[in-house]
Amino acid sequence: MNPVIYVIPLFGVLALLFTYIRASWISKQEVGTDKMRKISEYISEGAMAFLKAEYRVLAVFVVCVAVILAFASQTEDTHPLVAVSFVIGAFSSAFAGFIGMKVATKANVRTTNAARKSLGDALQVAFTGGSVMGLGVVGLGVLGLGLLFAIYLNFFGVIPGIVHGDKVPYDIHLVHKVINVLTGFSFGASSIALFARVGGGIYTKAADVGADLVGKVEAGIPEDHPLNPATIADNVGDNVGDVAGMGADLFESYIGAIIGTMVLGAIFIQVPEFKDYIGGFGAVVLPLAIASIGIVMSIIGTFFVKVKEGGNPQKALNTGELVSSVLTIIAMYFLIQYFLPASWQFHDVLYNTDRTITSLGVFIATAVGLTAGVLIGFITEFFTGTGTKPVKMIAKQSVTGSATNIISGLSVGMISTALPIVVIAASIIISFELAGLYGIAISAVGMLSNLGIQLAVDAYGPISDNAGGIAEMSELPKDVRAKTDKLDAVGNTTAAIGKGFAIGSAALTALALFGAFMEASDLKQIDISKAGVMAGLFVGAMVPFLFSALAMQAVGRAAMSMITEVRRQFNSIPELKAALAVMKKNEGKEREDWSKEDVTVFESAEGKAEYGKCVEISTAAAIREMVLPGILAVTFPVLIGFFGGKEMLGGLLAGVTVSGVLMAIFQSNAGGAWDNAKKMFEEGVEVDGKMYKKGSDAHKAAVVGDTVGDPFKDTSGPSLNILIKLMSIVAVVLAPLIK
Amino acid sequence: MNPVIYVIPLFGVLALLFTYIRASWISKQEVGTDKMRKISEYISEGAMAFLKAEYRVLAVFVVCVAVILAFASQTEDTHPLVAVSFVIGAFSSAFAGFIGMKVATKANVRTTNAARKSLGDALQVAFTGGSVMGLGVVGLGVLGLGLLFAIYLNFFGVIPGIVHGDKVPYDIHLVHKVINVLTGFSFGASSIALFARVGGGIYTKAADVGADLVGKVEAGIPEDHPLNPATIADNVGDNVGDVAGMGADLFESYIGAIIGTMVLGAIFIQVPEFKDYIGGFGAVVLPLAIASIGIVMSIIGTFFVKVKEGGNPQKALNTGELVSSVLTIIAMYFLIQYFLPASWQFHDVLYNTDRTITSLGVFIATAVGLTAGVLIGFITEFFTGTGTKPVKMIAKQSVTGSATNIISGLSVGMISTALPIVVIAASIIISFELAGLYGIAISAVGMLSNLGIQLAVDAYGPISDNAGGIAEMSELPKDVRAKTDKLDAVGNTTAAIGKGFAIGSAALTALALFGAFMEASDLKQIDISKAGVMAGLFVGAMVPFLFSALAMQAVGRAAMSMITEVRRQFNSIPELKAALAVMKKNEGKEREDWSKEDVTVFESAEGKAEYGKCVEISTAAAIREMVLPGILAVTFPVLIGFFGGKEMLGGLLAGVTVSGVLMAIFQSNAGGAWDNAKKMFEEGVEVDGKMYKKGSDAHKAAVVGDTVGDPFKDTSGPSLNILIKLMSIVAVVLAPLIK
Repeated sequence: MNPVIYVIPLFGVLALLFTYIRASWISKQEVGTDKMRKISEYISEGAMAFLKAEYRVLAVFVVCVAVILAFASQTEDTHPLVAVSFVIGAFSSAFAGFIGMKVATKANVRTTNAARKSLGDALQVAFTGGSVMGLGVVGLGVLGLGLLFAIYLNFFGVIPGIVHGDKVPYDIHLVHKVINVLTGFSFGASSIALFARVGGGIYTKAADVGADLVGKVEAGIPEDHPLNPATIADNVGDNVGDVAGMGADLFESYIGAIIGTMVLGAIFIQVPEFKDYIGGFGAVVLPLAIASIGIVMSIIGTFFVKVKEGGNPQKALNTGELVSSVLTIIAMYFLIQYFLPASWQFHDVLYNTDRTITSLGVFIATAVGLTAGVLIGFITEFFTGTGTKPVKMIAKQSVTGSATNIISGLSVGMISTALPIVVIAASIIISFELAGLYGIAISAVGMLSNLGIQLAVDAYGPISDNAGGIAEMSELPKDVRAKTDKLDAVGNTTAAIGKGFAIGSAALTALALFGAFMEASDLKQIDISKAGVMAGLFVGAMVPFLFSALAMQAVGRAAMSMITEVRRQFNSIPELKAALAVMKKNEGKEREDWSKEDVTVFESAEGKAEYGKCVEISTAAAIREMVLPGILAVTFPVLIGFFGGKEMLGGLLAGVTVSGVLMAIFQSNAGGAWDNAKKMFEEGVEVDGKMYKKGSDAHKAAVVGDTVGDPFKDTSGPSLNILIKLMSIVAVVLAPLIK
Repeated sequence: MNPVIYVIPLFGVLALLFTYIRASWISKQEVGTDKMRKISEYISEGAMAFLKAEYRVLAVFVVCVAVILAFASQTEDTHPLVAVSFVIGAFSSAFAGFIGMKVATKANVRTTNAARKSLGDALQVAFTGGSVMGLGVVGLGVLGLGLLFAIYLNFFGVIPGIVHGDKVPYDIHLVHKVINVLTGFSFGASSIALFARVGGGIYTKAADVGADLVGKVEAGIPEDHPLNPATIADNVGDNVGDVAGMGADLFESYIGAIIGTMVLGAIFIQVPEFKDYIGGFGAVVLPLAIASIGIVMSIIGTFFVKVKEGGNPQKALNTGELVSSVLTIIAMYFLIQYFLPASWQFHDVLYNTDRTITSLGVFIATAVGLTAGVLIGFITEFFTGTGTKPVKMIAKQSVTGSATNIISGLSVGMISTALPIVVIAASIIISFELAGLYGIAISAVGMLSNLGIQLAVDAYGPISDNAGGIAEMSELPKDVRAKTDKLDAVGNTTAAIGKGFAIGSAALTALALFGAFMEASDLKQIDISKAGVMAGLFVGAMVPFLFSALAMQAVGRAAMSMITEVRRQFNSIPELKAALAVMKKNEGKEREDWSKEDVTVFESAEGKAEYGKCVEISTAAAIREMVLPGILAVTFPVLIGFFGGKEMLGGLLAGVTVSGVLMAIFQSNAGGAWDNAKKMFEEGVEVDGKMYKKGSDAHKAAVVGDTVGDPFKDTSGPSLNILIKLMSIVAVVLAPLIK
């Protein structure tokens, strides 16, 4: 019995402990004024209502799939326990989403309140909220996977020895069985992730577009105004989409990368030359060990995120990430030395070739992964950040109208695919050269090694954003808003980088799973010159187009339901109707100059808007609309796998992955660039010596681009990250059945 | 010596003879009023000016590439003569473009004039113009390829015998050499096609957008108004883009499909069981024979295109195409019986498997190709035709603004990829099952068999469109315009179907060339699980995104040059300035109600706009902007082939093909759907019981979609058709060098 196997889950426990302590700390912070408390309660209730409704539907889905899995898995190579893994994986993902939302909806209002004191305090609260999410996700992942792995090893009677070079004669078939059963965990996580991303993406954009179109355009009330019944739904949407969605997305990548690497690591167990301290299991356990040590380094990193009044929050976040990255890289070096022999030769049956791998090569592959993630993040920032050349170009093209704004945004999105693809292609080639398919998989693990802190930084963004919204709605002094704005501006950059990182990790994870699929299904090659494979490639590449279209149309329909509901409230609630009339009457006047009666009428409308109804509408629409794309994503690979065979399924996966990554980058970056091009008009955009400000025709044209970009960057784009991983993991789970 | 080989070029001569007779007939038709003559002269001079400028640049390119080719090809497997093929291919494509433009710019004004008499006469002129283009293209293709093939067979001393079952003992190496040398023809045609499509696409949209933005928006003069200096350039653009561009595109498909099939057909020469009437060359000659018989059937078909006054031109065109298709299918059946043995078994070295092919199977494969082309055309029509469900949806979404119009257009474009991809995937699988890679290639030939008449119908569209413009500019009576409108409406449908057909044929042709590349480079598999191949797939799939972005940005820049020039003329030509002031002063008034002096001022401005300058600007911009994308397309496969190896090059090709087809369908259909959604406002669009007409806000929102769609459907989208074929043929030409 090797203690290493049992130590791993403890790191998961450590992360969850950290999560608990930090979450309690946040709960203890003050909420602020009554108004702030009320608003934050609306938001948190709305968010929980959505989660509950979503999980109710998903529970049915999970049970159905689990039953099918259990029945279908009664074969030689796998075991009905895969259904248990599936359920636990699904539960972990859902629970991670729950933790993230719970803490985010607590941290937002407390960040606002802290901003009444100082910038440093506000950053502390917002980032701590993010770190609860980040460490919660990795903690649940490592705990769940680590525990299940240890249990299954015992259950199936495969316990690795501990003597160096002295291998216990395992039944390799049982080892494969253990890992095949474990893949269910990843499948479970992916399924929940898909629904969370798609549902969350539809929710947030339906609320956003609905609130804007009726509220701002038709009724003429400003953004985040309490009279607008859809305002709360809009703020709930930020949490549902950006916190829970992003968390589920990266949880999926994290698990997928680890599992993919474990599957490929099992190849070395039988290699006589592969002599390590844990009976040949080193390459299998390595990804779990890296994840474990990454937890520690992420926690250490969080202590470096501090800013003084007047300081730069971006620098604080960068310091935290940098410290943790450097520590993780150093730790990985030693871990790899420990878990792997210095060098080993083996016969790669997949390629029917002899291959030599060195531990140094594996280390470099992980470093390549980490670097690729950072690079893709920076490239994303270059194409979408405020004031960068491409974004400036879009802003300038707005002067000739919305058509030119749209064309240039689309072209920026398309051109922005080039560099990330080159980075991905180079990473694949380098890490494959160094360590075969295992190299590609472990580089994905390297990229995600310190996910804890990376996700903390990601989740910090929407929390700050919400904090600003609450400051606005609660009519707090301007200097408070100025502080939250400062946090929010940083949040936009981290969000852009985070989106790029999510896509990059999805690409490498999908490739890790692709390798795992080949190994698990005993596939020796996927030859695209075969008609079936080429057809699979075509169909696979088409799926992201179809999926994006469905997501966008779903947003359109959901927004329509929201518009109808808001209109209904405006027409049927007398206080709202009166208040709107008063507003229209006093258009352009400051509140102080209104007549006394008008103010009375206006104030009596406060709280009369039925926010709950809008939240319900958005929830119902999101849940209704997420089903078709979700089912499609799961059934596609199953159908192709059973009717077209495993090689065609391989073609399908390659097509989905390649086209999915491209479409995700294209849509996310186009959306991000449009968003920031619009924001540039707040400062003013100069074209041919003329200055165009907020409210100008050019600004209006830029708003059109932003609206088009919304579903691109928050619904269809990010959903593709999940899609490619989900379809890959479905194939991996299916592999033992279609072998 | 087998006479069949020498008979084939005669069919090319027949087509050219037909072309000559029809072209003379058109020249003999009356031009009409002086004004019409003048306008048509402007257009035809502009078109010729563009062609001249383009060909001057291309001549340099062709010479350079030819020299490189000649030097690089001094190897065992090929011969410097490939450079000669290249030059002749390039010349043929350029000449086909010249013929098409020449006749189209003659036919347009004569169609207008014929419409003054009757609808039937107008259709006759417009369609005859189209048929000159159609038969010219196929004639040059069959003559060029057929002649070169016969010459090379003699030059290298490979002359097939004629006795059934009695094979002359060929040096198979020499046969391959002949075909390798022949591929240069296709490469030449492709290069010209790329520049014609990209350059033409940039030209037409720069002129269109430039004319609209300054003319309509800034100066407030209606479309096609003679005061606008960019009007002529706009009309020239229609010819440059839709006639020459489309012709070059399909010429490339035609040649590519034939050559690809010839390469794959050569596999059977050495198969002992393959006993035919021409010494084993049957499968090689078959595609040429099908093309030849297709010429005859296309000519016959043209005689069925006739309409009486009040009749339906669409029906007339359909009848012509249907008759020719049915005759072609019947003829193909007998041709295949003649050229191929009833069945033969051979060892497929590519797949290391024994395969049996029947002549019936080959026949079905050609029929599958023809059917797939028609199906994709109809699917395109469903997603882009006026009044269809998706287009109606876009029109309705315009009511909530341009953002929702854009989102729904993008989603329609994306969703419209699904069915064509399924059709393509199914065709690949079926034809591969029936006859291996040869089956896929011959199905592409089947699809293009009666290209002569299909292209005639395609080219008819822009001729009718131009005829309408000339009627407008020449201020002819309304009933003339009504007739040209009727022709034009039909032209829109044929254009939509034609675009779908072009994409479908590009896909199958690229696959035929893909197979040819494998055969020519001795590649036994392209295994995407290899890192290099996967990286190639990623990079290849990225190229269409990059290429589209470059094309769109080029249009933006070119349009800007045009805008600057039009502004300059408005400000510096006193007569124009005065006339514009008069127009503004009398805004809203009919011409009859203007003061006499105003009319004098206005009329004195006639002909003062310097159309030539705008034509020059557009020409210069298009030529300047086409270079980078063109060079990229050629160098990409060369670099990957030499540095990454042939298998990675295979991955690149697969990536380009799959993603190129998807992006082409997405962009073309989104553009087409936006265009027709806008047109629906001419009749009015009803939403929730309210009617929205031309000039409403909803219509303006739809105009934004149309403008975004313009470069999508006329520049970047169609350029991708060429891109995928060009990169494939570059690989085929390269194959003997990197083998």
